[in-house]
Amino acid sequence: MFALFCQDNQLILRQEYPLPLPEPDEALVRISLAGICATDLEMVKGYVSGFAGVLGHEFVGVVEQCADPAWLGQRVVASINIGCQTCEICRKHGPEHCPTRRALGMHHKDGAFAEWMTVPIRNLFAVPDNVPDEQAVFTEPLAAALKIREQVKIRPSLKTAVVGPGRLGLLVAQVLNLAGGNVTVLGRRRSSLELPASWGLATGLTTDFAENSFDRVVEATGNSVGFAQALRLVRPMGTIVLKSTFADDNHLDMTKIVVSEIEVVGSRCGPFTPALRLLAAGQIITEPFIMAEYPLADGLAAFQKAAEPGVLKVLLRP
Amino acid sequence: MFALFCQDNQLILRQEYPLPLPEPDEALVRISLAGICATDLEMVKGYVSGFAGVLGHEFVGVVEQCADPAWLGQRVVASINIGCQTCEICRKHGPEHCPTRRALGMHHKDGAFAEWMTVPIRNLFAVPDNVPDEQAVFTEPLAAALKIREQVKIRPSLKTAVVGPGRLGLLVAQVLNLAGGNVTVLGRRRSSLELPASWGLATGLTTDFAENSFDRVVEATGNSVGFAQALRLVRPMGTIVLKSTFADDNHLDMTKIVVSEIEVVGSRCGPFTPALRLLAAGQIITEPFIMAEYPLADGLAAFQKAAEPGVLKVLLRP
Repeated sequence: MFALFCQDNQLILRQEYPLPLPEPDEALVRISLAGICATDLEMVKGYVSGFAGVLGHEFVGVVEQCADPAWLGQRVVASINIGCQTCEICRKHGPEHCPTRRALGMHHKDGAFAEWMTVPIRNLFAVPDNVPDEQAVFTEPLAAALKIREQVKIRPSLKTAVVGPGRLGLLVAQVLNLAGGNVTVLGRRRSSLELPASWGLATGLTTDFAENSFDRVVEATGNSVGFAQALRLVRPMGTIVLKSTFADDNHLDMTKIVVSEIEVVGSRCGPFTPALRLLAAGQIITEPFIMAEYPLADGLAAFQKAAEPGVLKVLLRP
Repeated sequence: MFALFCQDNQLILRQEYPLPLPEPDEALVRISLAGICATDLEMVKGYVSGFAGVLGHEFVGVVEQCADPAWLGQRVVASINIGCQTCEICRKHGPEHCPTRRALGMHHKDGAFAEWMTVPIRNLFAVPDNVPDEQAVFTEPLAAALKIREQVKIRPSLKTAVVGPGRLGLLVAQVLNLAGGNVTVLGRRRSSLELPASWGLATGLTTDFAENSFDRVVEATGNSVGFAQALRLVRPMGTIVLKSTFADDNHLDMTKIVVSEIEVVGSRCGPFTPALRLLAAGQIITEPFIMAEYPLADGLAAFQKAAEPGVLKVLLRP
């Protein structure tokens, strides 16, 4: 089968990659549609070294083989972390932080940029009939956006800023805007704010806001300049939610965290069930994110497109 | 009067500094004993630029003038932040984060390294009779240690590390050790761990512990290397409490905060009433912290002593 393979931080189109064979606890899923995420781009750039495998963790597909016949023919998405199921962290908290976890398309497990993939049955989630593939493919990043609400009280009355109007930031902004939230999307270029402004969200240039302007700031820029801005914008006793991983390429001044007693909360993978619930209810806009769709065989071109500034989401169709 | 004056990050012994005159809402306090804190040392080194005034915010003294006669002759300590009392932050949260606050010996208000000082009456706390001056002078840093308990759940069963066995770290360790806490004090030199070990606390070299060893890590080293160690030592979904201010002189890798969903909580000034309660109950050891006492007139030598490695607390007596 075709597969987009990552090795030594190089992306390779493999044309005769072996068809995966499901383990007894796994399903074989035929990929219908997959999305390229910032993490995929960073893995090709070398952000995660050592992964040799098929990339891709945002996808929707159909179960073709499975020990549990109830899943056969079912349209599915899947959570990405595969834990050992026996350690204390797995038993208490689930697989996300298992020290020996694998992760679809990221760590010791082939991912979704292929024609078929295998997924543990326990990671599958059925996609509601009224959620088309083009929306279902956003379940994973939407779940990551929802994780913020699992971790931090973001009351509707709090002034909340989302710094970074990219793929993830715009899902975060929508999630926080539900239930009457007071959300402002901040970016470095006015052009990147047109989309959230068109949804009726408050927007602005990050540098136009004074220090201490917001009760909560979600940092979704993917760089340390964004974190420095988040620190500047959050008020004393406020909270910063860090969604994007970065190594400091500047010298971060952490003084304000102590002097103003700021809370910084790291946030990663989130719950799929409420993400699918929101998609089924039509409460999340995803259509304008999709800026291009490529056949899997043109995957290298798709990655180039996805890396262009301002491109929100590029899809791959096997 | 004698006073230790800070100007342009220079420490000057002023021999004829004018006696302070209390405002109507202030008390005139004769200083009995004062302590040199890391912040004092850093202000002399230039950590806070622009302060021109008498240093000192850890002290105990006696009220000599006051509009409220109940305070006259009372032995007192005082909280250091003076808010405007009218802004939203002052009304909701108190003076600690008032944007126009003054702070004793730090910001727009003369401090305690003098023979007398003036303090707003609302900042005064009466010292219980059974707490000698040599203990009462630790009220302010002990309150700062207690602040952690106001912010973060540190349950007795959680494995907690205090990184940095200095003045503040050893108060933090004692506070967290109360009520059955599972606390380990970590340092870079075995000699710095002898004191906490003598109290029966678990101790160790920071580098001897594997990553993810602790549920909670309190960072009290005052440098970014300590923060990097705290990040290494805290387990996924764990909490770091930052007590010490520092500018990053390395390149901090913030990736683990997101990937392992770490919470970082900045922590500064704390509550005086429970600090005095603990001192009155004899639950906090302070005597071995005191490594030297100087007359105020020898204040410059006292600062030199306080800056020596391994010196925990130097006192000044007017």
